[in-house]
Amino acid sequence: MARSPNKLEGGHGENSYSPFVAMESGRRLDGSESNSELESVGMGKMEVHHQVVLPPRRSTFSKFKRKSKEIFFPDDPLRQFRGQTCRTKFLLGFQYLFPILDWGPSYSFRLLRSDVVAGLTIASLAIPQGISYAKLANLPPIVGLYSSFVPPLIYALLGSSRDLAVGPVSIASLILGAMLSEEVSPTRDQALFLQLAFTSTFFAGLFQASLGILRLGFLIDFLSKATLIGFMAGSAVIVSLQQLKGLLGIEHFTKKMGIVPVMSSVFHNTNEWSWQTILMGVCFLFVLLLARHISLRNPKLFWVSAGAPLASVIISTIIVFEIKGQKHNISIIGHLQRGLNPPSWHSLHFGGKYLLLTLKTGLITGIVSLTEGIAVGRTFAAMKNYKVDGNKEMMAIGLMNMVGSGTSCYITTGAFSRSAVNHNAGAKTAVSNIVMSIAIMITLLCLMPLFAYTPNVVLGAIIVSAVIGLIDIPAAYLIWKIDKIDFLVCLCAFFGVIFISVQDGLALAVLISILKVLLQITRPKVVMLGNIPGTDIFRNLNHYKEATKIPGFLIVAIEAPVNFANTTYLTERISRWIEEEQEGDDGKAVGLHYVIIDMSGVSAIDTSGITLLTDLKKTTTNQGLELVLVNPVGEVLEKLKRANHADKFMGVETLYLSVGEAVLFLSSKMKSSAGPNSV
Amino acid sequence: MARSPNKLEGGHGENSYSPFVAMESGRRLDGSESNSELESVGMGKMEVHHQVVLPPRRSTFSKFKRKSKEIFFPDDPLRQFRGQTCRTKFLLGFQYLFPILDWGPSYSFRLLRSDVVAGLTIASLAIPQGISYAKLANLPPIVGLYSSFVPPLIYALLGSSRDLAVGPVSIASLILGAMLSEEVSPTRDQALFLQLAFTSTFFAGLFQASLGILRLGFLIDFLSKATLIGFMAGSAVIVSLQQLKGLLGIEHFTKKMGIVPVMSSVFHNTNEWSWQTILMGVCFLFVLLLARHISLRNPKLFWVSAGAPLASVIISTIIVFEIKGQKHNISIIGHLQRGLNPPSWHSLHFGGKYLLLTLKTGLITGIVSLTEGIAVGRTFAAMKNYKVDGNKEMMAIGLMNMVGSGTSCYITTGAFSRSAVNHNAGAKTAVSNIVMSIAIMITLLCLMPLFAYTPNVVLGAIIVSAVIGLIDIPAAYLIWKIDKIDFLVCLCAFFGVIFISVQDGLALAVLISILKVLLQITRPKVVMLGNIPGTDIFRNLNHYKEATKIPGFLIVAIEAPVNFANTTYLTERISRWIEEEQEGDDGKAVGLHYVIIDMSGVSAIDTSGITLLTDLKKTTTNQGLELVLVNPVGEVLEKLKRANHADKFMGVETLYLSVGEAVLFLSSKMKSSAGPNSV
Repeated sequence: MARSPNKLEGGHGENSYSPFVAMESGRRLDGSESNSELESVGMGKMEVHHQVVLPPRRSTFSKFKRKSKEIFFPDDPLRQFRGQTCRTKFLLGFQYLFPILDWGPSYSFRLLRSDVVAGLTIASLAIPQGISYAKLANLPPIVGLYSSFVPPLIYALLGSSRDLAVGPVSIASLILGAMLSEEVSPTRDQALFLQLAFTSTFFAGLFQASLGILRLGFLIDFLSKATLIGFMAGSAVIVSLQQLKGLLGIEHFTKKMGIVPVMSSVFHNTNEWSWQTILMGVCFLFVLLLARHISLRNPKLFWVSAGAPLASVIISTIIVFEIKGQKHNISIIGHLQRGLNPPSWHSLHFGGKYLLLTLKTGLITGIVSLTEGIAVGRTFAAMKNYKVDGNKEMMAIGLMNMVGSGTSCYITTGAFSRSAVNHNAGAKTAVSNIVMSIAIMITLLCLMPLFAYTPNVVLGAIIVSAVIGLIDIPAAYLIWKIDKIDFLVCLCAFFGVIFISVQDGLALAVLISILKVLLQITRPKVVMLGNIPGTDIFRNLNHYKEATKIPGFLIVAIEAPVNFANTTYLTERISRWIEEEQEGDDGKAVGLHYVIIDMSGVSAIDTSGITLLTDLKKTTTNQGLELVLVNPVGEVLEKLKRANHADKFMGVETLYLSVGEAVLFLSSKMKSSAGPNSV
Repeated sequence: MARSPNKLEGGHGENSYSPFVAMESGRRLDGSESNSELESVGMGKMEVHHQVVLPPRRSTFSKFKRKSKEIFFPDDPLRQFRGQTCRTKFLLGFQYLFPILDWGPSYSFRLLRSDVVAGLTIASLAIPQGISYAKLANLPPIVGLYSSFVPPLIYALLGSSRDLAVGPVSIASLILGAMLSEEVSPTRDQALFLQLAFTSTFFAGLFQASLGILRLGFLIDFLSKATLIGFMAGSAVIVSLQQLKGLLGIEHFTKKMGIVPVMSSVFHNTNEWSWQTILMGVCFLFVLLLARHISLRNPKLFWVSAGAPLASVIISTIIVFEIKGQKHNISIIGHLQRGLNPPSWHSLHFGGKYLLLTLKTGLITGIVSLTEGIAVGRTFAAMKNYKVDGNKEMMAIGLMNMVGSGTSCYITTGAFSRSAVNHNAGAKTAVSNIVMSIAIMITLLCLMPLFAYTPNVVLGAIIVSAVIGLIDIPAAYLIWKIDKIDFLVCLCAFFGVIFISVQDGLALAVLISILKVLLQITRPKVVMLGNIPGTDIFRNLNHYKEATKIPGFLIVAIEAPVNFANTTYLTERISRWIEEEQEGDDGKAVGLHYVIIDMSGVSAIDTSGITLLTDLKKTTTNQGLELVLVNPVGEVLEKLKRANHADKFMGVETLYLSVGEAVLFLSSKMKSSAGPNSV
């Protein structure tokens, strides 16, 4: 048998390795037959078990520094600066601020060709979408084009993503329009409304840039995937419902966003429905959705869906011009002013009674657009295996919006759909954004009058076909399969958005996500461990059926940080297990002697947690049991020591490095002490 | 050497135990010399590593049931009902509701004697404190005595603590008075004020009982120990400051609570200071503090501090009566009505413009008094080794307040100081509360006129000497030593209470505690593991200096639930480590081949977490690395499987039961595949 050699060697030079040989024959821990062996081998090993040592000593300040670094600089952005000369540091710093300096020098004609193709493709998408989204935000259509001109240029200088196509996006446009319209009418007070939109954009940018500069980017992580899926689907529904105005040709449409007022508005104004508009809308919507479908099926045909909107605009404009659409109740955009972005910094409005409104709008649109921008950036970066620095992106997006707000642009970010087209069209660097900007500039300078006859119904169809992609049912189904509570969060976000309001739906979903996490904290995982026969591995008794309890031992693993919110629960749980074990073993030979707590999973502890341990120690001692801790990690160990409980916990007999060693050592001790007395 | 036998046995019947023998000689994992051994032993063991199996299958409903049980019934209160006859169940249920039925039948004369002594002792404390606290709450003094009569009787029937002495307490009185005075003047609208106080008490009771019935008792756990220590110290300061009115004899005193208005009020009214009052106050305060000091030094002399307040009241009353105190500017209580509690249920006021005020006051006083009551109950239960059922206590305290609100009582709970006296005086059961009640009843019926000449200054001194015990500097120092952020929470609670307001200070501290926990979630513990030589134990490289990296492996342990709030951080962290490992080993022989993630500490995962794993799998595969998971616990494993990523993760080669087995298995694989190719 395998263990005979070990037995022979017990007490010799090699005995520091024997615990595992003995554990290997660990099945014998279950009771009687190996008594003699455990004694003969075990006693020799009493001094052998591996010490739990305190981590290297650090001052409070250095710990604080380390923690702050983990919180604010987990990505260690200054890594590359270390050990460089001043000049290199300066250059690197400049490169850090302007990523264009990083890739610019090695830019080649081959890359330019790809970028020009991609840039022109997204320009063809950006023009109709810009006009449409501006209308969604209750802003003049031309503002959408302005917003597709300046921000992409800024982003090309500062941004670190190579695929992000920057411009107005549907959800942020919707929220901006909805929140501002609650207090100011976009039709009656058009100038004021525009002022407030620019001011909100400035605040959004300021907020975004601050998040980046203060390294608080992790705050947007609180928008979980489930929240986003529900939120985007809800927003898509809301946005589509708003398009019913254009698609049906209704003139007296509600100003509200919820599904109830919109549907009632639609069905109370059936007399305003215009069949010509509806016919046109249905046709173009069909074409656009078909184009989208084709591109989805075959990514190489990306240009079909990319070009379809512009083609639709051109064709519909010609049709309307030819058939004199206005006479047939088809509403058109009307005259658009020619020229580049006029400055708007003089109309930013940092005070007065609308300050709170613009701050709130800025905050929410800022968060939402930031989330979209960062998520898009990260998605494509992961695909092409490069890195996007979240905090730097926030600064880039924030600055872009701040500059934008001074040049007649409203809130912009990296858009999902347009970035996908950009990527598929072969964009290599941010130069595609510059190309798009130039294309938009030419449009602004020369082609504006051509859009006068573009029918609004086509813009509605373009929006619907764009936002429909935001409804991701397979993803929602996957969430349902994986995690029911996440699905609940998703549903709350969805229904909150369509029935209450976009911002409240979002807030509700975030709140539930956080509550779920807090609940997880108040009910941390504690499991009873058993030995997997033939190993020194100890695993959850409820999970591994082959795991067996070891007589005389209660082995409990706490698998969460212990803090004020869960100490009561943990005390309750553990003391009930102790009780049950004591009740249960009346008939057995070996009563409960040792309570082993595996602390490996306790990554942090606070004062309440320390109290839990000291109280538990007292209780178990009162009951004649011995409490043993296994593998407390650095911070926990230090706190235990500092709490002056060191003497109680940190003797050689109460701290073990692994459950296996603790069981082995204690059972040999139990046997040796029980041997002479009991028999 | 110990391992020769194992080597010989590789591939034989016993080989299912050999991993540990080989691991035991684990030092040889570090490279070259044991190549041949690992190959010869390892290849034979390829099929041996222990399977990670799915936990026993359970339906969604049964999982939901189990989780709900863990959340709402962690203490399994129905345990004793299982397998009983209907009659026994009924009896047990009755006993559950009325713990008095549990201990009542075995009540003996010996117990009664102890309880009578204890009851009379706490009565001597309850009378002056009742009067004082009622004044603190801006209520007529007699209400304090009423509140010491009915609630203790109710508690004796329903409560499960044997040591709790029930009655009005300082902090809840202060908050009740302060919150109601903000909207109603206690002097001008005395009747309305009293009505609102009773209504708030009713709401507080309703809220407390609901928490118990809905099994939401764990919500009060969010008041951490640090919060409570800071909060109580701050409250003690605020309460003491309020007593300056009585102690200095000031008549025009501010109605505000904060330290700033009170001190300015004190020093703007120096002309109202009355030296006779001050002299009397200082003398009695000195005596009371001395008595307190004596009892603290020698717990057997508990009766010194217990009797001192009543003695002070009697002596001061006689002095004032003799010297005609009013003439010397010493204000007195004045006439008190004789008789038992009048009913007050007709004056409960469930509507009108004060509804929100009473609800809010009820909620906050309810939480605060509940926390005090439960904490006191648990402290003494732990001392005497019996159990207090939190949720049941909440129902008892709640019902006591609801009944109280109908019988002219304001909010009551178990008081720290009085329960300690009760315990020291030898109370055995809740009968001591009944004895106290009877003593108060006799006082109410016969002795009330005697209190007419009691000077207010002595009541102030009694309050100050009582609340001074709430300032626990050693505990605060211990918190400072153990956990700096907890200390910050403690300070916030303290300064929030004294500078802002009692309720806002409390809210601030709770908020910071929760933020701390949330921050812990966004920055979970991830550590790089190394092998402790001579064992198969893997521990944090930063903690255990002897732990060594294994060439070709990056072993990472995640020690927290993985969810939306931390996936970004984890991705960043792990991918940077992979990068560093790849950069670092240019010069070495063995490059990075395997990334092992120890999931033992990941007690829960959500959809974002699953995405993290699948993304990581993709990235590592792109980089030519192999990702291996170790010991995912039940829930995590199930979710991985359900996410349809089963095929990617759950092959034999990507799931291991322990880090040791994974390393052993993979290094033998690495050696055997590298052997023929590289050399």
